Amino acid sequence: MAKHRFVPDHYHSTLAAHAPVMHLRDGDTVTTRTLDAHGYDHENVLRGPDTNPMTGPFFIDGAEPGDTLAVDIHHIRMTRVMGWTRQGLAWHIVDPSTVRDMPAREKIFWRIDNNAGVIRLEKPAAALSEWSLPIAPMIGCFGVAPDDGEAISTATSGRYGGNMDYRRFGEGATAYFPVSVPGALFCLGDAHGAQGDGEIAGTGIETSAEVEFTVRLIKGKRIGWPRGENATSIFTVGNARPLEQALQHATTEMLAWLAQDFGLDAISASHILGMHVRYDVANVFNPAFSVSCRLEKSALAAFPRKA
Amino acid sequence: MAKHRFVPDHYHSTLAAHAPVMHLRDGDTVTTRTLDAHGYDHENVLRGPDTNPMTGPFFIDGAEPGDTLAVDIHHIRMTRVMGWTRQGLAWHIVDPSTVRDMPAREKIFWRIDNNAGVIRLEKPAAALSEWSLPIAPMIGCFGVAPDDGEAISTATSGRYGGNMDYRRFGEGATAYFPVSVPGALFCLGDAHGAQGDGEIAGTGIETSAEVEFTVRLIKGKRIGWPRGENATSIFTVGNARPLEQALQHATTEMLAWLAQDFGLDAISASHILGMHVRYDVANVFNPAFSVSCRLEKSALAAFPRKA
Amino acid sequence: MAKHRFVPDHYHSTLAAHAPVMHLRDGDTVTTRTLDAHGYDHENVLRGPDTNPMTGPFFIDGAEPGDTLAVDIHHIRMTRVMGWTRQGLAWHIVDPSTVRDMPAREKIFWRIDNNAGVIRLEKPAAALSEWSLPIAPMIGCFGVAPDDGEAISTATSGRYGGNMDYRRFGEGATAYFPVSVPGALFCLGDAHGAQGDGEIAGTGIETSAEVEFTVRLIKGKRIGWPRGENATSIFTVGNARPLEQALQHATTEMLAWLAQDFGLDAISASHILGMHVRYDVANVFNPAFSVSCRLEKSALAAFPRKA
Amino acid sequence: MAKHRFVPDHYHSTLAAHAPVMHLRDGDTVTTRTLDAHGYDHENVLRGPDTNPMTGPFFIDGAEPGDTLAVDIHHIRMTRVMGWTRQGLAWHIVDPSTVRDMPAREKIFWRIDNNAGVIRLEKPAAALSEWSLPIAPMIGCFGVAPDDGEAISTATSGRYGGNMDYRRFGEGATAYFPVSVPGALFCLGDAHGAQGDGEIAGTGIETSAEVEFTVRLIKGKRIGWPRGENATSIFTVGNARPLEQALQHATTEMLAWLAQDFGLDAISASHILGMHVRYDVANVFNPAFSVSCRLEKSALAAFPRKA
Repeated sequence: MAKHRFVPDHYHSTLAAHAPVMHLRDGDTVTTRTLDAHGYDHENVLRGPDTNPMTGPFFIDGAEPGDTLAVDIHHIRMTRVMGWTRQGLAWHIVDPSTVRDMPAREKIFWRIDNNAGVIRLEKPAAALSEWSLPIAPMIGCFGVAPDDGEAISTATSGRYGGNMDYRRFGEGATAYFPVSVPGALFCLGDAHGAQGDGEIAGTGIETSAEVEFTVRLIKGKRIGWPRGENATSIFTVGNARPLEQALQHATTEMLAWLAQDFGLDAISASHILGMHVRYDVANVFNPAFSVSCRLEKSALAAFPRKA
Repeated sequence: MAKHRFVPDHYHSTLAAHAPVMHLRDGDTVTTRTLDAHGYDHENVLRGPDTNPMTGPFFIDGAEPGDTLAVDIHHIRMTRVMGWTRQGLAWHIVDPSTVRDMPAREKIFWRIDNNAGVIRLEKPAAALSEWSLPIAPMIGCFGVAPDDGEAISTATSGRYGGNMDYRRFGEGATAYFPVSVPGALFCLGDAHGAQGDGEIAGTGIETSAEVEFTVRLIKGKRIGWPRGENATSIFTVGNARPLEQALQHATTEMLAWLAQDFGLDAISASHILGMHVRYDVANVFNPAFSVSCRLEKSALAAFPRKA
Repeated sequence: MAKHRFVPDHYHSTLAAHAPVMHLRDGDTVTTRTLDAHGYDHENVLRGPDTNPMTGPFFIDGAEPGDTLAVDIHHIRMTRVMGWTRQGLAWHIVDPSTVRDMPAREKIFWRIDNNAGVIRLEKPAAALSEWSLPIAPMIGCFGVAPDDGEAISTATSGRYGGNMDYRRFGEGATAYFPVSVPGALFCLGDAHGAQGDGEIAGTGIETSAEVEFTVRLIKGKRIGWPRGENATSIFTVGNARPLEQALQHATTEMLAWLAQDFGLDAISASHILGMHVRYDVANVFNPAFSVSCRLEKSALAAFPRKA
Repeated sequence: MAKHRFVPDHYHSTLAAHAPVMHLRDGDTVTTRTLDAHGYDHENVLRGPDTNPMTGPFFIDGAEPGDTLAVDIHHIRMTRVMGWTRQGLAWHIVDPSTVRDMPAREKIFWRIDNNAGVIRLEKPAAALSEWSLPIAPMIGCFGVAPDDGEAISTATSGRYGGNMDYRRFGEGATAYFPVSVPGALFCLGDAHGAQGDGEIAGTGIETSAEVEFTVRLIKGKRIGWPRGENATSIFTVGNARPLEQALQHATTEMLAWLAQDFGLDAISASHILGMHVRYDVANVFNPAFSVSCRLEKSALAAFPRKA
């Protein structure tokens, strides 16, 4: 249950079986830094590749294919005053007939005020001059090495995690990933200061960050897609196009979870989901879209959960 | 601002320019009854067609194409102890590879306890014997006559509303519909005692109801898709397949709303939506899926709203 | 087996249980006229509504729900020198990132030369000055009254047929429609002088026409979606969004046809389809897309067909 | 312009920057062997990984990112009497409501008769006892190393090619791939003895093969997606889910081709495509679907093609 501080000196733009930067044991905690989505650090110096550069991979001792890696996200601290987005919504988010009326998608800068806990536009239009939004940090891209010897761009996502850009992967959340290679090879990066559903502007508030997390190894527990939970919800994340397929994956994984840990058969689970399920459109921007199938823990209060 | 009690004696299974059952004026309030989705009333007697029979249409005096009809939903009271759903999830909601392992979709009965405010399975499996869910009533299907002389089955939905099966169209919500024919010709039915996102079991808790609502006519205000609001949110509903297209319609309509009533240009609106938007998968079961693009009113507190 | 000439004096822009214009018997042949997609006749005079105005409906004596109506298309003659399309491809047919570079979608005129059997642009750009295309006439929109009392815009399509815009519904083809109301109530219109797959410019060569067809009534034969055949192929047409769902409907209907008329079980049919199926993207423009599942008759030569 | 015979001794199940097995020059011809989709050779001995094992990669001297690699497919000879498929159609190809009625997807064996040029089922049901299909060989999976350091499973496809399973990549066809890494690193495998559109049974006739091909390097020509041509057609292949996106990619690439090699602006190209385009659903089974946008060369006869 050691505590580590890791300062990266190189970054990856694929999730793959890269050489590990550090060995961790079940229960270890790490504090480390991440670059922004274009490779810039806390001093706005270019330090890595320009597509969601990853810090890691971390080799979790004892992790084998068929296990599950749990990652508890303790803190995500913005390490830069400047964040950026693009203006205008992504063009596939609006009716095709209106795309030609949409604004050009220029890069826009924001000022992150950690003391006040808010983010403001650098150069707001008059209408937005008084507008600010609360900092609500999240990890945009993290996961483990994929199966089958693949090396997948951190632009996209899959069963192994990746660029899910889901706002509920924030402080206090735990993420679960299916281990496909020895050591799991966990990576993380692409922190956002805030983001709505769907990442429909194509970005969150993109910035550099310091992240503190604990890894836990769940031996012999097999999951199919990333799972997560926080104080109030459990959720599963399906990553695919179109949204229907992402939703199918997430729902199928939730049925598996309800069977595995709550002992609920398909009929009982369907009654609970039919009345209580919540779907979050995590991102509808990346090459794979991400849909979260979510249940409030209160909806499961009657059903004891396996350790 | 009259108050009416209307007892229907016939029902429609299309939204269309049917003969009106009653004339209403701007501000009038109506209390009326709806059958369940298969045409059964509060005594479980078959009184109407078996696909979401509609009470109405109500002719709103003065309503013309290009206006907006607002409907304030005051009360939705379950009028029957028995509600029903189907067991098992709809087969297109899970991975195709798992459909053959899913249970047969038999009709299942529930007991609605208005006093306790909860709903329970009639014959629960052991695992669910202690389980109940809170009554959270909603209107599954309502809307106005469509444009172009169409008569559209109440199985589906469109710009005119229809079978959106969205849980936020509950007590205290206001729905807005674009008027396409003189009098608007508002209909309603298919109340649910409770339902999760997506209507993934294919039904909510289907039952008969008594509904109290007020109609308000907004002359000269043109909207493109159903809108809604409640104490905490405003939302727009796009109805189409696939989910991407429903989401495009809803987002485009929200951009229109933010321009129309909040004076926000496309760039300002994109900043607000990019950071604050919430998407609800209202239904992913009906012939047209419904996606809601939603903003908490708190996210718009800085922007004055037109009357 | 009478021969009729019918000159329409009104037109419909929905497929529905409109009052019939003529009664036909099994085997009767009709020669009639159709307006162009915007309601203009052979003299370019506006005579009908501006969305695929329909000639009809024709009441086929003895047709009942559960029967099949066969329509043999003998001739489709262009009755006007002028045809029109739009320039540029529909914006949802190209990558969203390129829509803003596409040309404005102005109306463009073509000259139909029935003698030479070709169509030319009225005002071709230099590159196309020598370019012509062969006349290959087809019926864009035809079908029967839908089920459930619906009246559906001729902009779209469904189980009952409608605006399928499929180039193989040309001269020499037979179309089959499932009868849902007494008399079937067959309508037709929206002839195209030529069109590629998908109707990706949003139109074919839109013009007025004279059409000769024979109706045949197949009592007690139940089909689920439009079917068709010509000298070389049989095909089924699924109408829905997205393309996957249209393809599912068409494939499911082809399996039904192979069982019904060729005695092939699901496994045998899957072998034949797996090796021989052809899919045509009939239209990817209308509210419902249309996909045709097609088999060359040569691939079925070994299997006797029921009368 | 050398001729090479290459006998592989190892195989890859990703397209990636693997160590090359041979250097080729522009114009060189290679005859080599491929395993079947599960890794079995001409003696039905397991020799490679079980997902579309690739022969190669071949390093084309002088190929650089931004070039195009042309591959002329001269011969595809089946080297085994036994081929296999699965019975029944893939479950996402039919209506979800019918999946539970579909047969189990067992492995089925076929007999390839190179002398007669036909393929027959090993153990046909009575209905298919006289049925055979002509050998029509194709390459299911081939392409170059992807961009961005990715290693992508040969189960799927992308801009770099991969598992497109398109029946027109047969003898006499030329395939074009965008070069993303030095040497292009061309691989091939997964030959099919025959296959319909869409690969809707999930396989073609899977078998081992001997393939003869010539590589040609087109310096400085940049393409976005795989292209192809044969004696009668040119085509572009978009690889993505859903079908709409694959179709968008293919159409956008065809517009680029018509501009690049035929000098046609977007408006002229839209007229030609609108009237002449053909879409093939190459595969609707793999993780990425493949749609081909195709033009008969006869439709382009009026337009001179750049060398």
